[in-house]
Amino acid sequence: MKILNLDHISANPLLPEVQSAMIEAIKMNYGNPSSQHKAGDQASEALERARESVARLIHCAAPKEVVFTSGGTESVNHAIKGLALANRDKGTHIVTSNIEHNSVIRSLRRLKTMNYQITSIPVDGYGRVSPDHVAQAIRDETIVVSIMHSNNEIGTIQPIEEIAQITREKKVIFHVDAVDSVGVVPIDVQQLDADVLSFASNPFYGPTGAGGLWVRRGINIWPLLDGGIQENNKRAGTENLIGIIGMGVAAECAMRDMDSRLTHTRKLRERLLKELPNYIDEYYLNGHPDHSLPNLVSVSIKYIEGESVVLMLDDENIAVSTRSACASGSLRASHVLLSIGRAFAEAQGTLVITFGVDNTEEDILRFLTALKDVVKTLRDLSPLYPKTAHS
Amino acid sequence: MKILNLDHISANPLLPEVQSAMIEAIKMNYGNPSSQHKAGDQASEALERARESVARLIHCAAPKEVVFTSGGTESVNHAIKGLALANRDKGTHIVTSNIEHNSVIRSLRRLKTMNYQITSIPVDGYGRVSPDHVAQAIRDETIVVSIMHSNNEIGTIQPIEEIAQITREKKVIFHVDAVDSVGVVPIDVQQLDADVLSFASNPFYGPTGAGGLWVRRGINIWPLLDGGIQENNKRAGTENLIGIIGMGVAAECAMRDMDSRLTHTRKLRERLLKELPNYIDEYYLNGHPDHSLPNLVSVSIKYIEGESVVLMLDDENIAVSTRSACASGSLRASHVLLSIGRAFAEAQGTLVITFGVDNTEEDILRFLTALKDVVKTLRDLSPLYPKTAHS
Repeated sequence: MKILNLDHISANPLLPEVQSAMIEAIKMNYGNPSSQHKAGDQASEALERARESVARLIHCAAPKEVVFTSGGTESVNHAIKGLALANRDKGTHIVTSNIEHNSVIRSLRRLKTMNYQITSIPVDGYGRVSPDHVAQAIRDETIVVSIMHSNNEIGTIQPIEEIAQITREKKVIFHVDAVDSVGVVPIDVQQLDADVLSFASNPFYGPTGAGGLWVRRGINIWPLLDGGIQENNKRAGTENLIGIIGMGVAAECAMRDMDSRLTHTRKLRERLLKELPNYIDEYYLNGHPDHSLPNLVSVSIKYIEGESVVLMLDDENIAVSTRSACASGSLRASHVLLSIGRAFAEAQGTLVITFGVDNTEEDILRFLTALKDVVKTLRDLSPLYPKTAHS
Repeated sequence: MKILNLDHISANPLLPEVQSAMIEAIKMNYGNPSSQHKAGDQASEALERARESVARLIHCAAPKEVVFTSGGTESVNHAIKGLALANRDKGTHIVTSNIEHNSVIRSLRRLKTMNYQITSIPVDGYGRVSPDHVAQAIRDETIVVSIMHSNNEIGTIQPIEEIAQITREKKVIFHVDAVDSVGVVPIDVQQLDADVLSFASNPFYGPTGAGGLWVRRGINIWPLLDGGIQENNKRAGTENLIGIIGMGVAAECAMRDMDSRLTHTRKLRERLLKELPNYIDEYYLNGHPDHSLPNLVSVSIKYIEGESVVLMLDDENIAVSTRSACASGSLRASHVLLSIGRAFAEAQGTLVITFGVDNTEEDILRFLTALKDVVKTLRDLSPLYPKTAHS
């Protein structure tokens, strides 16, 4: 039976257009974009075409503000470490939130060992950061605020424009981790008014191994990769041209199909939310009801373990996840779920369902039917489940 | 007319086997290797197969000692910055040579701004580092020695095993930048007895955007990319699976074809060196006559500028380079050529010719015939060329 992918946030399939473009690039055998001869020129033109597509997707002022990276994690590391190190003379304090991705958290933890101070602000029960809290956390020595655009576990979208007003007023650099938003929801970096924005190609059906960092002109940032003169001297190393060409085409498709994708995934999400109570009981929905990614549902199901659900659904060829794939294998409860007030056991009983262009409403019903059985089986085995009341 | 590629060091074409494997991987639409379900398992198996192939190519003790990166520059940055930061409590002094790649030089320059001390040792006229000089440069507070295996501009191969004896004895970590050697000449990390070794996929006909770092078990090194738990906790970020699968197949081909490639490129190199005096005069050959990459010829031609030669040969559809593509666009003379004693003008008159499996002896003659015309034209225009003596 075909695998039903409801774990798009871990891995989106490549779009047919992206596959074709990458296969063509492989057959083209491009040269090195930095070479001075014709083979280099062709490669360089392909690279700059992709940069223009990506620049249009995020509406930045000029394509040269886009730095290609090896993916979201490199972009975030580059942003946080590069801004912190380059602006050390201005201060060593950084403000972030309690529900950031591990690439943000661990980059900041690294900086802490290098005598930077980090203030991590709480979120409300929906996972939203309060702009007032950001304003209160900023001190004279604050150099950077780093807040994610959307959360990869609960889908909540942050009030980025309001936070940007504060950072602009207080003259602090604002980095936005938009890895799970760019290409998924409309992103206009000029409207957001942030300074640096991280993104990756796979969330909009491009390949892994390709991502980007938008750096507003004039922002002082160190490269993470020092060496050659590539990427406008901001990121050394010969570019992953095949992957970047794929990302460029994926960006074009995302712009073309943004509205229909939003409509499609919202419909699936609404269907799932509507049907869910007909299949299981005693669960919480996580994330904000309105300010949320259109393609994500996070549900904490009482008296079960999410990992067991993932493995049992896998036997039915259904892929879902419990949390970020980057953190799978970790035994700790999700810091995101604990931050929005879930108890440890509830956090462990959480499923993240993420839709894609390839899903249908039938997929939702297949998933729910399987989920109902799995939840019943696991609850029957659970010593915590109050059996007399339910059986 | 088909472009004649004599600039393989800037960009090797992908082997047909590598192209097929990458195209197949694109069509497979692999999941995320870190996911816990079947799609993740398939991706994880493909990733580990590639790791085993790469581990065999460099003869390391276990595949898990191989960390996949986005290429040679990331590997080198990871090695140098990761070792320096992780071992800061032991000291802040690093030893290197005067002819390293810019990724090494600029990573070290970055560390200098963070209060590390760098000793850069000279090389002889052939570009060789003396192990005695390394021994003399090591102090009590030295934590790392970083020396390249082969030089990307003049091809000289360093006495790595002898240097490793010294670093082993003095208990200093030894990083070898082997980006232009792995897959090109036989590399056995256990025989070399280094501790950390950087490499990339393109020098052995794999894709750009994929590389690796070998880290001997027990070596203390920080990740450059913090975040998820990928790559045995040494390098966060979802892997460039398509590129890595290509690198794995390229590694298998490199092992299978190592002997025939060495024979083939050595024959081309000898033919070029033998014929050269029949086509041009007043030139120097750079690099060591014996300890050298088999696929590289560096020649400094008097009274001309290398860049002009590159551009004029490009008009004839022949690709060569003057130096590392990573440094092209820079107006400075090559630090490598100045280090081996070339004068500024000689350094500017240098061509780097690099052969590949796709070149033939006819290519050499086509190149030489074109070069002869180009050199004559440029010298006729040069005010420095003593015309009476030669015309």
